[in-house]
Amino acid sequence: MRFKQIFDYARETDTILILNGGENQIDKTFFYLSGADSGIFEGSALIAEPNGLRIITSSLEEESARNTGHEVLVFNKKAEYENMLKDATKGVNVIGLNYSSLTLDRYKELLRIIPDKEFIDVSSSISESRRLKDPDELNKLREAAKIGSEALEGVLDKLKEGMTESEVASELVHEMMKGGAAGPSFSSIVAFGANASMPHYSPGDRKLKKGDFVLMDYGALYKRYCSDITRTVVFGRATEEQKEMYEIVRRAQKESMEAIRENMNGKDIDAIARKVIDESKYKGRFIHSLGHGLGMDVHDHPALGSGYDFPLKENMVVTVEPGVYVPKVGGVRIEDDVIVKKDGFEKITSAPTYDLIEVS
Amino acid sequence: MRFKQIFDYARETDTILILNGGENQIDKTFFYLSGADSGIFEGSALIAEPNGLRIITSSLEEESARNTGHEVLVFNKKAEYENMLKDATKGVNVIGLNYSSLTLDRYKELLRIIPDKEFIDVSSSISESRRLKDPDELNKLREAAKIGSEALEGVLDKLKEGMTESEVASELVHEMMKGGAAGPSFSSIVAFGANASMPHYSPGDRKLKKGDFVLMDYGALYKRYCSDITRTVVFGRATEEQKEMYEIVRRAQKESMEAIRENMNGKDIDAIARKVIDESKYKGRFIHSLGHGLGMDVHDHPALGSGYDFPLKENMVVTVEPGVYVPKVGGVRIEDDVIVKKDGFEKITSAPTYDLIEVS
Repeated sequence: MRFKQIFDYARETDTILILNGGENQIDKTFFYLSGADSGIFEGSALIAEPNGLRIITSSLEEESARNTGHEVLVFNKKAEYENMLKDATKGVNVIGLNYSSLTLDRYKELLRIIPDKEFIDVSSSISESRRLKDPDELNKLREAAKIGSEALEGVLDKLKEGMTESEVASELVHEMMKGGAAGPSFSSIVAFGANASMPHYSPGDRKLKKGDFVLMDYGALYKRYCSDITRTVVFGRATEEQKEMYEIVRRAQKESMEAIRENMNGKDIDAIARKVIDESKYKGRFIHSLGHGLGMDVHDHPALGSGYDFPLKENMVVTVEPGVYVPKVGGVRIEDDVIVKKDGFEKITSAPTYDLIEVS
Repeated sequence: MRFKQIFDYARETDTILILNGGENQIDKTFFYLSGADSGIFEGSALIAEPNGLRIITSSLEEESARNTGHEVLVFNKKAEYENMLKDATKGVNVIGLNYSSLTLDRYKELLRIIPDKEFIDVSSSISESRRLKDPDELNKLREAAKIGSEALEGVLDKLKEGMTESEVASELVHEMMKGGAAGPSFSSIVAFGANASMPHYSPGDRKLKKGDFVLMDYGALYKRYCSDITRTVVFGRATEEQKEMYEIVRRAQKESMEAIRENMNGKDIDAIARKVIDESKYKGRFIHSLGHGLGMDVHDHPALGSGYDFPLKENMVVTVEPGVYVPKVGGVRIEDDVIVKKDGFEKITSAPTYDLIEVS
């Protein structure tokens, strides 16, 4: 049970309180600890203790909450919520909070409702627990990666001249949802031609034409777990320049990915990919980190980047996504998701990357 | 320019600092003030002053940031970011922060980077500004509502026996994206039969069968603005019970919506709908507020509910969504989006609701 396991990490307290906010302040830890597979739980609270977990929620989520099997307290009015929070923490002195998701206004409200407590930050402990995936989580991540990978084929078949970036984004989401995704794991990036030089581009009305790079960065949400995949193809015949750009990124990805195994350091893996690119004519054009952790959040811990002096552990899951970006010209990014193993890695995204795909 | 207008509300300071977080801590105010129509801007900062706006961001978002026309500072390393923040706030004494979106860890980091400032909460002022929509925002909301409304017809045409809730959700998203949406504005709710009794149900593998209620709560994201629509239909012939349930909700919606105009109070509008339901056999089965504000966030200010003693103003946009939920049996919810006018309202969602639709 994760609400017990979390205290292997958070040894400084016996009580963790997670306050879920509104749509922009969702703490996935609420779902990680409670196991709720339905519901949004805006404005709900969760109290985890080594001997049990309680959910304080509104009637809106009552059925979803009861389905978890945990103790559920249902409020209808704000005053009831406050009284439940007071009662549930009676006799508790030190309460762990997730500082990385708790907003200042909710924190100040908490100080008003239960002013007599000592609050401590357990965000690092939560992160340590969440970054190590258990077998059930790994299976959900594998399925999310499979759905994302399989969606690509259907979309490549549909590419045709004059199609817009938004239409391609729409097809990606549709294929993933047909494949079993609850939705996209983030707002898909689809960039044609020169637009591919913006790593976080939002798809627009640009129409596909022969010779365009087509960069697709997208992912599936499956039972609250995310995949994150990027593929870059050429619509029509690729130029020598496009082939060269692709080959450098592909090699940067291959060499860095092959270095992944337990105890390798995030910054050293990033350096391998960066060296390949910086020794080519695209020196300085790899303008982001090599990868990030993946889980219930698309950008989870740990990261693979120059600022991350952190050894990987078995069952962490990371993306490997080198890229090259040339403003006004275009860009290439290739991204796969891998599970860290004792002696290597398991690549869970299956779409091929060996050669630059020319879609005709 | 919104970065000027915001100081009509936030009179207590000349400087507002918005710190955008990661995927679960996005402050839409960043986009509201900057007008950035592309990009995610995770970990970026925005400094608004009456004479201009500056964006501090990473190379990842540089092109998107420059497209706004505002001053842009680009960092590559954390230390550069911190120095830019220091420089940009030199000579400033009082800085307004959005307490409703700023997490404790970012606040503590800020106290470390610029320890010599006085920070004040301007979240209410931001909310006051954001809840009053300007003509450009109203047009985007109308388009989002139109895309959402038009998607319904395509989906009703495709309903067939044996289809799963997830498949219907997939078709809704696909129709909206084909219609020009950047994506869904939130994770769609599609519930068949008894599942419709959970207001926040997540779609699953339940197969559609004759006689089922089909509750669809979904919306389109268009140029960062949201629509939010719920329709409940019956697949096949409706029973008398289903017709009665639908008719009560429809009447609750009609009567409460018709009361909407400037200076009407959110709690009074809620009370009109609640009275209709509580005087029927479904007394006590309307277990949530009547509506919520709509804008860049799906759940924006102001709310229509018993706890909201707040007069509506012209150009606020709200949902009107009464519902009746009977555990193990099912539920009906009907939701439309309306713009508040001086003497009434403009309903911007166009899908019909007059009769219970029986899809065959």
